[in-house]
Amino acid sequence: MPIRCSLDEARALARDCLLANGCDEANAEAVTETVMAAERDGCPSHGLFRLPGYVAALRSGKVDGKASPIVAEAAPGMLRVDARGGFAPLALQAGREPLIEAARRQGVAALGLVRVHHFAALWIEVESLVAAELCALACTAYMPAMPPAGGKQPFFGTNPMAFGWPRRDGPPMVFDMASAAMARGEVMIAAREGHELPPGVGLDAAGEPTTDPQAILDGGVMLPFGGYKGASIAMMVELLAAGLIGERFSFEAAEQDNKDGGPPRGGEFILALDPARLGGEDWQAHSEAFFERMLAIEGVRLPGARRHGTRARTPDSGIEVPDALHAKIRGLTEGAP
Amino acid sequence: MPIRCSLDEARALARDCLLANGCDEANAEAVTETVMAAERDGCPSHGLFRLPGYVAALRSGKVDGKASPIVAEAAPGMLRVDARGGFAPLALQAGREPLIEAARRQGVAALGLVRVHHFAALWIEVESLVAAELCALACTAYMPAMPPAGGKQPFFGTNPMAFGWPRRDGPPMVFDMASAAMARGEVMIAAREGHELPPGVGLDAAGEPTTDPQAILDGGVMLPFGGYKGASIAMMVELLAAGLIGERFSFEAAEQDNKDGGPPRGGEFILALDPARLGGEDWQAHSEAFFERMLAIEGVRLPGARRHGTRARTPDSGIEVPDALHAKIRGLTEGAP
Repeated sequence: MPIRCSLDEARALARDCLLANGCDEANAEAVTETVMAAERDGCPSHGLFRLPGYVAALRSGKVDGKASPIVAEAAPGMLRVDARGGFAPLALQAGREPLIEAARRQGVAALGLVRVHHFAALWIEVESLVAAELCALACTAYMPAMPPAGGKQPFFGTNPMAFGWPRRDGPPMVFDMASAAMARGEVMIAAREGHELPPGVGLDAAGEPTTDPQAILDGGVMLPFGGYKGASIAMMVELLAAGLIGERFSFEAAEQDNKDGGPPRGGEFILALDPARLGGEDWQAHSEAFFERMLAIEGVRLPGARRHGTRARTPDSGIEVPDALHAKIRGLTEGAP
Repeated sequence: MPIRCSLDEARALARDCLLANGCDEANAEAVTETVMAAERDGCPSHGLFRLPGYVAALRSGKVDGKASPIVAEAAPGMLRVDARGGFAPLALQAGREPLIEAARRQGVAALGLVRVHHFAALWIEVESLVAAELCALACTAYMPAMPPAGGKQPFFGTNPMAFGWPRRDGPPMVFDMASAAMARGEVMIAAREGHELPPGVGLDAAGEPTTDPQAILDGGVMLPFGGYKGASIAMMVELLAAGLIGERFSFEAAEQDNKDGGPPRGGEFILALDPARLGGEDWQAHSEAFFERMLAIEGVRLPGARRHGTRARTPDSGIEVPDALHAKIRGLTEGAP
């Protein structure tokens, strides 16, 4: 049976667990806000469900829960945020204002987040840039899970990419999608709940198509969305989030990870663009006309709309946490070393 | 029967036709080089096949064959290239060096190409930036051909996106793909040659799935690759290549086009990033190790490899031009107004 919690109760659950397991206040707050953004928006695969992984990485010593990020300018339009072996949320907070300033000044700016352990959804950082009236793109490479086009063995991570655009009224347009036909978190949840998957999501350990999520997780591979085109997107994410910023490709992250179940060390690439510089004074009216026309088509809605609908409700309704997960997090808090 | 031509013969065929139909020397040269890059690389859908469309746009007066592009700095990292109603190739030439300089100086730079008529493949401009050791991305919106996720009526263009990364040895890695399940040029060629399409490429005018290319072209719609994820990529292209740079969205381009068969007015977005700034001194060895590992997987090859293979052969082998197309281009040259 799921346990119904208020957002404040769930927040305390996460925060206490992180503090008990070696996070300092700043990191515990930042990770908790990231976890709670997912819970608040109805994305449980990136919410409390990830907490045992965060804790595993703290307990193994892979991640420094007290890391203090450093922001440096690598070029007038390029920032490096060194997370110094910590989780991503505090480092993203540190980089946000400098990236916004650089994008406003230069028209476009990029941020390379390095020596970081990223375990969350990307729409969170994209939305925070879009709130500053910027167009933003973020991507990160993760553990090998998908073959390149033509191959059968895992090489690319599920490699999510998020993109956002500010809207004049109502919530921003932000999409966040794995390069895989399905997000790994969704496959993990399907496995946990015993659901079958649609065809085309992955191959089993023998390289054969399967609809069993556990068969994909047990030595199989995820498949990119849309065949070779999705595979190209996954490759682009590797090159931006590892090659360009000097961090680990998915295959390197896997080779060097301690397999504690927490996020491996990796990098994240973020791009911010100021639409006011080339888009003209009426850039926002122009893009609003685009969205209006798009939404006038029967059956069409904007990516992210469901998230914002849920966000409006959860402060009153609270959220449901699976009882096993709730007990596990309590156990991790009380049984902390 | 196809007619076998040397590259020089084909080049002269294109150039004479453009000059006869109102291009000045500079524009005729630039468009010809773009057409010939496609022919040389074995991409006939973007080669001489497009020439009748170029000519139609010149004859109708929609495109100025003597346009002289202007490059301006909109921000330290953002350039605007105003093609002044001309075709894209000369404007892209004008913007190339300033964009390379800006990317080297700023780390990242964007270029908005506006008041332009783009009718070619994007890998050409991406490859020219990658040749300068930059990572590059380009995209452009075109005439409405695909519905947003959930819809049935055309709204997004087929919206190609190209991305490239420099390699130390051998040809650069450049992919160039439509957001559609298949490029519109390929559907046009399939229609001309009477080939059936694989399922999932489009809907007919009644909104039903079809494998008949002509049924898609006759009032039907193309479908994005990979379902709603490809639709999100197509939307991103609209926002970058129209919203961000202040040019026409696909739906606007269609409403304002004179339907002469040539390319509508639109825009192109190009991003260039310098991997040396964040990627470290060994950035190239790092990405080479990635490509080596990827290519060691059975069945895997890099996007663009076929193009470069063809490029090595066509200087000797020449190319085949369908006789009807050859005669048509001759007719357009000799019968020029």
